[in-house]
Amino acid sequence: MFQLDARLAQDTTPVTSFALSRVLLMNDARYPWLILVPARDGLSELHDLNASDQALLNDESIRVSRAMTELFTPEKINVGALGNIVRQLHIHIVARRTDDPAWPGPVWGHSPAVPYTVEQLVDMQFRLASGL
Amino acid sequence: MFQLDARLAQDTTPVTSFALSRVLLMNDARYPWLILVPARDGLSELHDLNASDQALLNDESIRVSRAMTELFTPEKINVGALGNIVRQLHIHIVARRTDDPAWPGPVWGHSPAVPYTVEQLVDMQFRLASGL
Repeated sequence: MFQLDARLAQDTTPVTSFALSRVLLMNDARYPWLILVPARDGLSELHDLNASDQALLNDESIRVSRAMTELFTPEKINVGALGNIVRQLHIHIVARRTDDPAWPGPVWGHSPAVPYTVEQLVDMQFRLASGL
Repeated sequence: MFQLDARLAQDTTPVTSFALSRVLLMNDARYPWLILVPARDGLSELHDLNASDQALLNDESIRVSRAMTELFTPEKINVGALGNIVRQLHIHIVARRTDDPAWPGPVWGHSPAVPYTVEQLVDMQFRLASGL
């Protein structure tokens, strides 16, 4: 039974589930920021996945990247698998704008999150549900 | 004819070429840091690649990630496709240690690179040639 890391659960809200991955929305209103978590236990590196799951995760990541491009028309999509703090394998996909607070640096480790209001979160969930 | 971005060329030294990607070593002695650049013109996002190149890049990225794990026994591999500054599509694969200067934050945008000495660079090239 797959168990989502407690820190990931705390920092995000669930959006949907794909064949392999849970899709989570980072609770930071400053950036459209999704996280894919392959629902497999005990993985921390991309190369820990078996070959078919690697291909599946790649497809799911591309799908999210393309959907975020259409939904948010960002300047750039940033994709990252870091895991220095949270070891459970997870992939960040972030839609960046030139006027966002961290531009052109990475969002990771930049500054504390600014949570969505309830209204913003409902709106975001609605957009993601229609776009993903 | 594929042309490597001038900034990438300046900041790195070539290691090898795979079926799809050029493999470059970032000239920063503080981190084992490789960059994959798919040798295709005009791409900036992962989803700009066609489906077969996406699969190929994924395989090449996994191959580098696994090789760096064996060569450097890092605490964590960090993989990132950012491109906020250099738009030519490129994938960073970085072997992280808990005593490296940027840990546990990202290496991108952390601080100016510390170039390899000639001796260090030769040694690194030799290790990479045998491990990749």
